Parts: sequence; structure tokens; C-alpha cells
Amino acid sequence: MQVGIIGYLGKMGQELLRCIEENDDTCVYKKDQDNEILQVHPDCLLDFSIPEAIASSCKKALVFQCPLVVGTTGLGNQHVEMLEKTSKSVPVFYSTNYSLGIHCLHTMLASIQKQLKDWDVGIMETHHTEKKDAPSGTALSLQKTLARNCPIQSFRLKGVPGEHQIMITNQNETIHIKHTAYSRKVFASGALDCARWLLSHKYENGFFTMNSRFKGEQNETNNTTNH
Amino acid sequence: MQVGIIGYLGKMGQELLRCIEENDDTCVYKKDQDNEILQVHPDCLLDFSIPEAIASSCKKALVFQCPLVVGTTGLGNQHVEMLEKTSKSVPVFYSTNYSLGIHCLHTMLASIQKQLKDWDVGIMETHHTEKKDAPSGTALSLQKTLARNCPIQSFRLKGVPGEHQIMITNQNETIHIKHTAYSRKVFASGALDCARWLLSHKYENGFFTMNSRFKGEQNETNNTTNH
Amino acid sequence: MQVGIIGYLGKMGQELLRCIEENDDTCVYKKDQDNEILQVHPDCLLDFSIPEAIASSCKKALVFQCPLVVGTTGLGNQHVEMLEKTSKSVPVFYSTNYSLGIHCLHTMLASIQKQLKDWDVGIMETHHTEKKDAPSGTALSLQKTLARNCPIQSFRLKGVPGEHQIMITNQNETIHIKHTAYSRKVFASGALDCARWLLSHKYENGFFTMNSRFKGEQNETNNTTNH
Amino acid sequence: MQVGIIGYLGKMGQELLRCIEENDDTCVYKKDQDNEILQVHPDCLLDFSIPEAIASSCKKALVFQCPLVVGTTGLGNQHVEMLEKTSKSVPVFYSTNYSLGIHCLHTMLASIQKQLKDWDVGIMETHHTEKKDAPSGTALSLQKTLARNCPIQSFRLKGVPGEHQIMITNQNETIHIKHTAYSRKVFASGALDCARWLLSHKYENGFFTMNSRFKGEQNETNNTTNH
Repeated sequence: MQVGIIGYLGKMGQELLRCIEENDDTCVYKKDQDNEILQVHPDCLLDFSIPEAIASSCKKALVFQCPLVVGTTGLGNQHVEMLEKTSKSVPVFYSTNYSLGIHCLHTMLASIQKQLKDWDVGIMETHHTEKKDAPSGTALSLQKTLARNCPIQSFRLKGVPGEHQIMITNQNETIHIKHTAYSRKVFASGALDCARWLLSHKYENGFFTMNSRFKGEQNETNNTTNH
Repeated sequence: MQVGIIGYLGKMGQELLRCIEENDDTCVYKKDQDNEILQVHPDCLLDFSIPEAIASSCKKALVFQCPLVVGTTGLGNQHVEMLEKTSKSVPVFYSTNYSLGIHCLHTMLASIQKQLKDWDVGIMETHHTEKKDAPSGTALSLQKTLARNCPIQSFRLKGVPGEHQIMITNQNETIHIKHTAYSRKVFASGALDCARWLLSHKYENGFFTMNSRFKGEQNETNNTTNH
Repeated sequence: MQVGIIGYLGKMGQELLRCIEENDDTCVYKKDQDNEILQVHPDCLLDFSIPEAIASSCKKALVFQCPLVVGTTGLGNQHVEMLEKTSKSVPVFYSTNYSLGIHCLHTMLASIQKQLKDWDVGIMETHHTEKKDAPSGTALSLQKTLARNCPIQSFRLKGVPGEHQIMITNQNETIHIKHTAYSRKVFASGALDCARWLLSHKYENGFFTMNSRFKGEQNETNNTTNH
Repeated sequence: MQVGIIGYLGKMGQELLRCIEENDDTCVYKKDQDNEILQVHPDCLLDFSIPEAIASSCKKALVFQCPLVVGTTGLGNQHVEMLEKTSKSVPVFYSTNYSLGIHCLHTMLASIQKQLKDWDVGIMETHHTEKKDAPSGTALSLQKTLARNCPIQSFRLKGVPGEHQIMITNQNETIHIKHTAYSRKVFASGALDCARWLLSHKYENGFFTMNSRFKGEQNETNNTTNH
């Protein structure tokens, strides 16, 4: 895959570059605030930069006529609208957390959400001390999937790339669900994985999220074994 | 609820009696190999005894014209057929694990089963040293829900009522799902809960399992939040 | 062992009675606010009641000339002084948490406390919703053993007898230490265990704590294997 | 610190080079089977290669008159004897696991080893599928510190840098102790940390291990709080 990166000097941009190198992909286009280096038109464009860059990224995707994968956080409605408009002409994928494991947590919690009405739930998240916001966006998003106002507790402790734990309790039993990210790489490789997925569905324009990607794979929970 | 218990002298029978007392239910009928004490006809009959007792339990349920909840393990096909035949006349509920939490684990694993095709999975279960069989029936049943031949490891350690852990791994991230039972009471109160559920659907005969009970609540995983 | 119980109508008193029954011990004396039932003089007196009862419990121990095991929480200095004075004449054991597992946590954290100077630490505790105070006394006590002002987070969730977790983090690695109590019984049986320990050292008066009990067993950490 | 690396082309050698770069240290000497590049004499020599290289590494340390830090696994007695002989002339540090967290686990388990005589213990370790040996050397070493023949279970699952869990159980309570390594970097930075520690004690020859390093910090477990 020949990849283009918007925001290649940022932390996620650098992580994407490392991932691309390890995967035998190549970076053929990279752009940051003051730099733009174009070798050939990329197969796919990834934007992990700032909301203000969205307009320019959309234009680039149209010029290259290639899918756009966006992981920039803090987008306003106007930015999402630009992405939706662009998605009429090229495939656009948008998520604020490209970890496939975190997506599994969403799927699992959605699947039991109604069963939990008599249970109590608590969410705990731990991140390194450089992370300024608390609770994490991912914790808030898990709370939304659970559709209940459960307590969230946050720790900011040295060196933790990201740990999310959901504790689900009832009389005489407890369920713990925990996701551990070992490094920022999980988000970069998840985004590249989504880019590859878009490319395998060539010419299908549209606006995609983690949910749409796994839709076919999560609709069929009624075929569990009888236990 | 006025309850009848088959196998009231066994460990689960005794646990059921304790639960009934705490819940303001009453036990109006109890039976074991050599004893049978009938006060009045029960609203519901619970059988946690031995496979050989099934035939007699089915007859009793027909006499009382009340639902039958079975938690006996090690049933053969001929026993299940008896239950199914009985379920034409009275509601019959059958499960080998009445913990609602373990049912949540099944639902969750079923919901992500297809998403996990590139992931590795391992199951670990720990039980007290009196438990003779390994791996536990519940671990085997979780493996079946995952529809893959993943490794299962068993510990038999003093005093552990029951712990099941599923480890789901990929490059750079790991998910741990763990169920902890605090006491045998979780199975007794789960069975009583299923009895109450049957009674709330009066006159509906049929053969029910944990899956049928929660069917309406687990079919709709596509309405997750976009994240 | 023939046991006496002060506060036998309280939750811990009832738990002690259940434990005594299961262990082939007997309760030969029991007292509560308005009741006092004496069969014979006990081998050991256990007080799990209220601070106001301490004076009377001390007198009883002197009358019976038997060891006194105290688990009452919320004692003031004046109560501890009474216990210390009494301990000149009979053995007195005092702890606010008789779980042997929690004592292991204290021993472990004390053993690494100096090694952790460059690490970050967080404590999380979860208890049932009836528990009013937060953080738990045990969490505060673990923090004291760590000799650092680390953050403590508390959850109050249905049905959890008591879970304490310490998370110890550094660049590239994390340690989780977790204690799970399955029921209140762990505190009752821990207290009875301490009573038995006192009786095995007959006639040695003095004021004992969990630390003094395990002193001989925790002083020798330098004989670890070379690894 | 100016570092020399024996085995710089191996996985740990490459990890050491990355760590050195990030820490503002420099690599002034590197050697592998067919290469040897010397800029200036190093302050410290690190050997993460193969047992057969030990003899040559010892000679180099004597030539450079600098400390030697060895992390090579699978050493025989004859290799350890060489290291001990060399340690009469220069400081030598030897460990098969330079993670400070794993050392904490050893210290903690040693501190409670005698308290655990009535408890059951199980060890579980999980590593990536490329790891050939099972159980891990670290699991065996933890078992040795516990001084008991407890069961060890191993999982080999995709992408797990290294997870060790010890489960300690008794009637009504359980302790879980878990160490998670996020990447191989933890071993490289631990070794560099030990090199720095040796340099801060200039001219003290001798044979050092993780135990000797933290000796002063683990001997004083009796000053725990009274709880």
C-alpha cells in the first residue's frame, strides 16, 4: 500500500511512519504545517493532525481520488460535515480510537447492555501523566455504549500507554473487562488496517466508522450455543 | 413464590433453601432419595439432583401443573428428551450454569466471535480442590461459544468458588474478561430468578434456556454509538 | 476452642457464630447490649461491637483470665490505652482487619516500599453500596504502609464484599496487586485464627497485632534466590 | 554514559541501541560475531549475546578496565565461574531478567513466603508465540523464590511481550499479583540502569545481582505500620 500522511511530524504521524516501514508499505506523500513532500499519488490518505487541517485534507483526497482515513480528535460539527460531503466522492473513514480491541469492548458492552439492568457498573481508566484530560474520551464513549450514567474513575500514572477496565457487579458475582494497550502503535496499525479494508472495497464511496466496518460481524448474537 | 425442591439434601439443595429463606419465598415441598415432605402444591419445582431423578421430577411437575427448573448436570440425551416432552404440558427451563454473569460472558463472546479471527484466545479457569473434573464444563462451553479450539488451562486451588478468565490478544493490545463467583449462592439465586421469570409468563409451555430467556435483550447490537 | 463473643447480635457477631459452628468450636458465652448468656468460662473472648463496650470487655477478660481479641473499629486513644493496660494481665490482640490476605498485602508493600521510589502508585477499592465511608480504612492503611501520598479511588457497587487493588507503574511495565474477599467470613475466621494463635502461646501476656503475629516470618527477605 | 555492546545485532542489542539513543548516552564500542567497531574505550560493557561469547567479553572488560553487565541466558557453571573470576578485577553484574518490576515480584513473594504455608499458589505466564520454551525462566525463578512446588501454566498467544501472574488462594479470599511488560525495552532500560548503578560505585569490584543491588532497600520489612 502506498500511503500519504497529513501531520507526519506529530506523535501519531511518526508512529504511522514506523508502522509503514515495518509492514512493507511505503509513504509516498507527507505533509505537515510547513512541509509537503510528494513522490507519487498515494493509494490512501491518513490524517492525524488538527481540526483546522480537515478542509485541506478533504481537498487532497479529492485531488488524489483516494480514500481518506481520519483520526484527528476534537472535530466540530462543521468538520464532520466536510468529511460527509467528501464521502460522496471518495470513501471516508472516521474514528477517534482505531484500536480494534477497544472496538471489541464496545461490541461486547452493547451486546449485554439490556441484560445489565439489575447490575452495577464502574469504569476505571489509567493513562500516563502527560495525558491532560480526564476521564479519557474512550471511557466516556464506553459509558455511552452502556447507556447508563455509571461512575468513571481516572488514574494518571507514569508510563501507562492506556488501560480501560469495566467492573460489572451483582450479588455474589463480578465481571471484570480490561483492555490494555501496550503502545501507541496499536492506534497507528489499527488506522492502517482500516485503510487496507477501504481499499479492498474499491470504488465504494461513503462515510465509514468502526461500527460500519464490523457490522456484518456483530449482528448475529442469537446463534450462541445453548448452555 | 412457593417453591418445591428435588434434591434438597444436596449442596445445591441446601443453598436453595438458604436463598429461599432470605428472599421471603417459602419451600412448600421437598424431596430427596428417601424423604418427601409436601405441605401444599408449589408454584414452581426446582431439580438439582441426579440424572436418575429426572423421570420422577417430570411426573411431579405434571401432577403439580407447575413449571420445572432443572440444574442437574450430566444429563444424557434420554433425560433431555424427557424434559422436552414434559415441556409440551408445563414450562421447562434447563441450564447447567444459572449464573447470570456467566451468561453475560457467553453473550459478549458470541458478539465478538467473528471480529476475533486474527486474534489469539486462551481460557483459564480456577476452582477449589474438591472439583474433580478439569477443564470445567463452563470453560468448555465458553470455548464452544467462541467456536475455536483455543487452549484451556485449569488450576485447582484451595477455596476458590469459581473464576473464569478469557485472554484475547493481538499485536500491541490485550483484552482480559474475568468472571468471579463469590459463592455457590450465585447459582441458587440464578435458578430462583429463572423460576420467577417463568412464572411471570404464566401458561406459556415450552423448553427454555438462558439464551431463550435473554433473547429479546441481546439481538440488537447494531444500535451501538458511533465511536 | 470454647469462645465468648461480645456483640453477638451484630453482623460480625453472627458471622463468628456461623464460623464457630462450622469449625467444631463452641460458643459458651455471648453478650450484647441487653443480653448476657454464660454457660462456662470461655478460653478466649472476641469483641466485635462498639467502642463504648471496650471497658466492659476488658473487665470480662480479667474475670475470665482469658485472651481478648478485638476487632471493633473506630477506637479512640482512650480505648487503645485500656487495651494496653489489660494486656499486662492477659494477652490482647487488636486489628481492624483480620483478613490474612490483607496482612500479606501490607507485608509485600512494606518489602518493596523503598524500591518504588521512581514508580507511580494508585490504589483502587470497591465495596458494596451499604458501605458508607470512602476510602476504606484498609485502603488508607495500605497507603500508610507505602509511605506515600498516592491517589485512592473508590467504587461503591452492588454485592462486592471487598476488593482492593494496587497499581504500580513505570516506563514499560506495570504491577497489579489485587485482594478479593469472597465474604465477611474471611474476617471472622481470621479473628478466630488469631485467637487460636494466642492460645498456643499460653500465659504470654502482651499487646499483639497482625505484625507481631507474623514478625518471625517476615524479617528474612534477604534470603531470596539469586535471579 | 559511554557504552559498549556485545551482541549488538541481536534483538536485545538493537533494543539497547534504541534506548541509548533516547537517553543521551552513546555507544562507543560494538561487537558481534563478525564485526567489531571501536571508537573509544567505553565506561561500561553490556553483553546480551550467547554463552560462547562470555570468555571474550570478560577479556574485553579487563582490557577496558570497565564494569561488565551480562544478560545472556543459558549460561553454564563454567561461564558463571569466568564471570566470578573477572569480578575480582572489575565489577560484574549478572541477571537473566533486568526488569525492575520482576525484581519487585521476587522481593514481595520472598517477604510473604512463610506466611503462605496454609495457602495455595498457582503461577500463570503468557508470552508471544515466538517464545519457544515453556514455562518461562522467570516463572521458574518465581517458583524458586516461593520455595514450593506450585503449578505453573503457560499460554503462548500472539503479541504478548510478557505477563506473569501469581494467584494465591485461601478459604474466602484470593490475592492476584500480576506483572505486565509492555515491550522488550523494559529489559534493555533495566540493564542500562544497572550499569549506571555500578558506575556510581566506582572501583568497587565484585559480583552483583538484582538482590545485591536492592539489598539495603529490602531488609527492613519489620517497620510496617501497625494495622
